[in-house]
Amino acid sequence: MDIDRIVRVDLSSGAIREEQAPSRYEILGGRALTAQMLLDETDARVHPLAKDAKLFIAPGLLGGTAVTTSGRTSFGFKSPLTGGTKEANVGGQLGHRLARLGIKAIVLEGTSPDGWQRLDIDNDGVRLSDASNLAGRSNYDLHRELVGEALNTRAAATIGPAGEHRLSSASVAVTDPEGRPTRHAARGGPGAVMGAKGLKAIVVDDDGAPRVVPGEKKDEFRKEVTKFSKVVLEDPRTHNLNKTGTAGVVKFVNRDNVQSMPTRNHRHGTWSLADTISGQEIDRLGQERGGKMLPCMAGCVIKCAILFNDEHGQHVTSALEFETIALLGSNCEIGPADAVAELDRMCDDIGLDTIEVGNAMGVAMEAGVLPWGDFEGAKRLLEEVREGTPLGRIIGNGTAHVARTYGIDRVPVVKGQGLPAWEPRTLKGMGITYSTSPQGADHTAGMVTARGATADTLVKQSRHEQLVMMAIDSVGVCQFSNALPGDMATFVANRFGIDYDDGKVLEMARSGIDAEREFNRRAGFDKGDDRLPAWLLDEPLELPDGPGTFDIDDALVDAVWSS
Amino acid sequence: MDIDRIVRVDLSSGAIREEQAPSRYEILGGRALTAQMLLDETDARVHPLAKDAKLFIAPGLLGGTAVTTSGRTSFGFKSPLTGGTKEANVGGQLGHRLARLGIKAIVLEGTSPDGWQRLDIDNDGVRLSDASNLAGRSNYDLHRELVGEALNTRAAATIGPAGEHRLSSASVAVTDPEGRPTRHAARGGPGAVMGAKGLKAIVVDDDGAPRVVPGEKKDEFRKEVTKFSKVVLEDPRTHNLNKTGTAGVVKFVNRDNVQSMPTRNHRHGTWSLADTISGQEIDRLGQERGGKMLPCMAGCVIKCAILFNDEHGQHVTSALEFETIALLGSNCEIGPADAVAELDRMCDDIGLDTIEVGNAMGVAMEAGVLPWGDFEGAKRLLEEVREGTPLGRIIGNGTAHVARTYGIDRVPVVKGQGLPAWEPRTLKGMGITYSTSPQGADHTAGMVTARGATADTLVKQSRHEQLVMMAIDSVGVCQFSNALPGDMATFVANRFGIDYDDGKVLEMARSGIDAEREFNRRAGFDKGDDRLPAWLLDEPLELPDGPGTFDIDDALVDAVWSS
Repeated sequence: MDIDRIVRVDLSSGAIREEQAPSRYEILGGRALTAQMLLDETDARVHPLAKDAKLFIAPGLLGGTAVTTSGRTSFGFKSPLTGGTKEANVGGQLGHRLARLGIKAIVLEGTSPDGWQRLDIDNDGVRLSDASNLAGRSNYDLHRELVGEALNTRAAATIGPAGEHRLSSASVAVTDPEGRPTRHAARGGPGAVMGAKGLKAIVVDDDGAPRVVPGEKKDEFRKEVTKFSKVVLEDPRTHNLNKTGTAGVVKFVNRDNVQSMPTRNHRHGTWSLADTISGQEIDRLGQERGGKMLPCMAGCVIKCAILFNDEHGQHVTSALEFETIALLGSNCEIGPADAVAELDRMCDDIGLDTIEVGNAMGVAMEAGVLPWGDFEGAKRLLEEVREGTPLGRIIGNGTAHVARTYGIDRVPVVKGQGLPAWEPRTLKGMGITYSTSPQGADHTAGMVTARGATADTLVKQSRHEQLVMMAIDSVGVCQFSNALPGDMATFVANRFGIDYDDGKVLEMARSGIDAEREFNRRAGFDKGDDRLPAWLLDEPLELPDGPGTFDIDDALVDAVWSS
Repeated sequence: MDIDRIVRVDLSSGAIREEQAPSRYEILGGRALTAQMLLDETDARVHPLAKDAKLFIAPGLLGGTAVTTSGRTSFGFKSPLTGGTKEANVGGQLGHRLARLGIKAIVLEGTSPDGWQRLDIDNDGVRLSDASNLAGRSNYDLHRELVGEALNTRAAATIGPAGEHRLSSASVAVTDPEGRPTRHAARGGPGAVMGAKGLKAIVVDDDGAPRVVPGEKKDEFRKEVTKFSKVVLEDPRTHNLNKTGTAGVVKFVNRDNVQSMPTRNHRHGTWSLADTISGQEIDRLGQERGGKMLPCMAGCVIKCAILFNDEHGQHVTSALEFETIALLGSNCEIGPADAVAELDRMCDDIGLDTIEVGNAMGVAMEAGVLPWGDFEGAKRLLEEVREGTPLGRIIGNGTAHVARTYGIDRVPVVKGQGLPAWEPRTLKGMGITYSTSPQGADHTAGMVTARGATADTLVKQSRHEQLVMMAIDSVGVCQFSNALPGDMATFVANRFGIDYDDGKVLEMARSGIDAEREFNRRAGFDKGDDRLPAWLLDEPLELPDGPGTFDIDDALVDAVWSS
C-alpha cells in the first residue's frame, strides 16, 4: 500500500483535511520530512506557541514494515526551548500504526478555542472530540485509559501536566508495548507545542489496517529484513544493550581518562557513587526484583529498555536510560538507582524531558534552590512542575530559564538546550556535534566518541555521523540497529522499487540538515549560535594526561557544514 | 579642567586602575562613549552577568557645566534583558559630581569573590571596600545612609534587592536633589549587571572638586548657558512639564483618536478610569497634600519631577512619571493615582524598571497569576521580588520571562524589552523607533508622535529623532530641554574650543548608533530582530477612522538605517 496521506488537523476550526503527499515528499520520511515541511509551511519567526505554529508528526520511510526497529516517529516543530528547528524522535508503538493506516504525516495547526481536545485515528477515519475528561491527568493514568488492554492495535501520544502548562521541556509520551507511557518525544518541548494547540491526546488504532508490504520487490525486501535482523542480533553491541541497556556505559564513562559522567552541574566528569547508578548495579537489582529487558516497539530484536522494579517487585519505570541516569543522577549527585528510577517515572508521568530537567535541577542546585543530592527535594520540585507552581514552571521551562531566573551565568546549554551526558572537554567530537547540530546540544544528533583523533578528523566524523543520524531518523529505525547508509539504501530501494544507494541516502540526509539550518537562519541563528558555552573552554577537567577543555578552533567547527 | 580620567575597577582582584582617556574618545561622552567602549572592550557573545562582562558609567560631554539639565549619566552594558547593547540614561546628582572629579568613565569589571563591595569616589581618590553591612537593604534606606545630609556634595548609585538577585529588570538608583533614590538607570537591567559584579553601591562626593568651566571660550560658553536657560524657560512645553510633569499627557493620549494609554496588557488604548491617574488629578491632589514639582538634578530649570504625598501629607514618591503611570496603572487596570504612586515607590525602593515590571505584571495578569486591577496583589508580587521568591524572580526578570514561564505567546516586547506606553498601532512612528532602535522598545530612543504622515516621512523622522536622542544622551542633557543639534554644537564648540556644528553632532550620533548596531550584530541580532511582535500587526485597535494596526512595510522599517 501507499503511505501518502497527509492529515491536517486545524484545532482552531476543528476542520480535518486530508491530502495526498506531493511527489517531492515521496522519498522523505521521519525527520527529513518534518524538517522540510516545517521549513516549507511555517514562518521561522513565528512564536512557537502561536496559532500559526505547527506540529508535524511522521513515521519514517520504513514505518509499518518488518524491518527491525523501523517504527520510530518524528515530531518536528519550532522549539519553544531553542527558538529554532526541532525534531524529537521517539520509539514506541505509534510509528508503525500510523504507517499501517497509510499516514505519511499529521500536521497540527491552530489552537483550540473550546478547551482540551483528543484526536482519534483508525481505519474508519480521523475524528477530533472534546477531552475535558482528560484534562489535568498524568501520562500513566492516561495511557491506561486510552490504550488499556488494546495493546495489539492501539497507541497513544499524550501530553502530561507539563505540556498542559506549555513548559519548554514538556514531552509527548508514546505508548510502549506493555501499554505504558515510557517512550518520549522529549527534546525541545513538543509537549508545549501540542499543549498550546489544546490537544491532549492522539489515539491511533490500526485494527483492520493492512500490514505494510512493499510492492514489486517484496521478496527481496523480506530477504533483506531477515538478513538485517540476523546482523543486528549478532552484533556484540546488541548483546551489551540487551544486558545492561544504555546504562551499561556508566562505569566506562566514569573512568578518570573519559570523565563523561556529568557531576554537580557538569563541574566534574566522575562521581564517586557512580557504581550505585550503573547498568551493572541495575542488572543485579533486576535479577533480585524481576527486572527485565524490553523492546520499546514491537519487532525490535535489540530490547534495550530496562524495566526497573522497586524492592517489592512493583514496576517503577521501563526507560531507565543512560542520559536520564547521568543528568538526574550524577549531575545532581542523586543516587542510588532506586532514586533515579523514581525521578524517571515522575518525569514520564508528568511528561518531561529527563535530560532538560536534570540540567535544570543542576542549575537550581547551583543557585541554592535545593542542596546537591537532595532526592526528596527533587521529587518535591517535580511535583511542583506537575502542579504548575511558579517554581515548578521555572524548572519545567528548562536549563537556560532556570539560569536566567536565578542570575546564573554558567549555563550548560547549546542553542538553549541542555547538555547531554557526553562530555565535550574529553570527547571533543561530541562538542563539535553539540555546536553544529541544528538541534542544539543533542547526543543523538551524531555520536563521535573517539579520543585522541585530530581536530580535522573529528570534524569529518561529526559531519558524517550527523548525516547518518539524519538518515536513521528519516527512515525511522533506531540508532542502535547500527544501520549503515548502505543498509538503509537497500531497504529504501526494495521498499519503493527505485534505484537508491548509500550516496543517495547521504544526499537525502544533507538536504534534511540543510532544511534545518535554513530554518534556523531564518529564525535568526548565526555562527555565534554554533558555539559551546564559554565555561567549557575556560574550566578544565583534570585528566591523567593534563587539563582538558574544549579547544577546537571556531573555524574548524564551522567547517562541519561549510566545507 | 580636563575630564579625562577613566577609572577601572576590577571587582575580581580589587584592583583600581586609572588611565587617561585616549584621544579618540575626547569628543565622546555619555551614551556615545559607553556604546563605543562596550563595543571596543567586550566580546558581544559574553554572558551579561559573567566576569568578563563590563559596566560602563559616564557623564555626558557637558557634565559638570552650568548648562541646564546637563548632569545626566549613561550606563552602558550588555543587557541581560535583551542580550544586546544597552544604555540606561539617568538624571539625578551623579553625573555632575563625576564630571567635577574629572571622571570621563567608570569601568566595572570582574566579579567580587568576597561578597558585597562599595566604591567610594571623592577628591582624595577611589576606594573599594567591604559592604556586607549594606547587603539586602533597599534603596530608600541605603540613600539615607550613604548620602544623608550631605546633599550638596554627595550622590549614590545603588542596587536594591532586585539587583542583588540579578534580575533582568533591576535598575541602578541614583540620588535626587532631596537625597532620595528616585532617579533610575532602569531599562535593560543595569542593576543585574552591577549585582553580578558584587557591587552594591557607588558613593561619589565632589567636595573640594573644582567647578567645571571651559577653557578658552569661557565667556561665550557662559553667555550661551544663560541664553539657553532662557529659551528653555520660555518654551511652552516647559510650562506644561512644570505643571503636571510627564503625567500631563494622560488625558491627551487616552482620547479615542490616539488610544495610547495601554490597557489590559496593551489590548486597548484607552482606559475608562484614566482620569484617576492623570496629571491633572495628581496636580489637584498635590495642591491638597503639599505635592510639588522638583528638578531631578541641581541646575535644571524645568522641574518636571512630581513629588507625590499621601493623604496625610507624607512623601510617597518623587518620580511619578507617565510611563510608570501607564504601565503599572492602566496597563494593569490599577488606579487611582495613590495606588500607582505606591507601586512606583516600591519599584524605586526595590530597584526595578517600572516599564518592564508594568509589562511583566500585565502578562502575569493575562496568565491568571492575579486578577486585572488587583492593587494588593501587585504589591504582594513586588514584595516577592524584594524577597527573591520564585514568583518574585519570574516577575523581576521581565515581560518575556513571565510570558515564557506561563506559555503566553502574545508578548509585548521588542528585542526582549517591554513596550513603553506610546502605541505603535496609532503612533506608527513609535513603532518604527521601537523596531529599529538598537535598544529595543524604548520611547526615549526617538519620539515620533505624528499621526497621518506618510510611512516614508515617519521613517525619516524616526531616523532623525533617534540620532537627536543619541546626541542628547551623549552630551548628557535632558530630552525635555529640547536642545537642538545646533544648540548642542554651540556648547560643545565653546566647551572644548573646537569647530563643531550641527552636522558634526549628527555624525557623532550616527557613529554611536552604528557602534550599538555593530554590537548587536556581533551578539547575533539580524533584521528579524528589528520587528514588532506579530500581534501589533494582527490585532487592530478600533479607531474613529477605522481599525488600526502597525502596517509599515518591513522594507521601509529597514530603510531607517540602511538608506
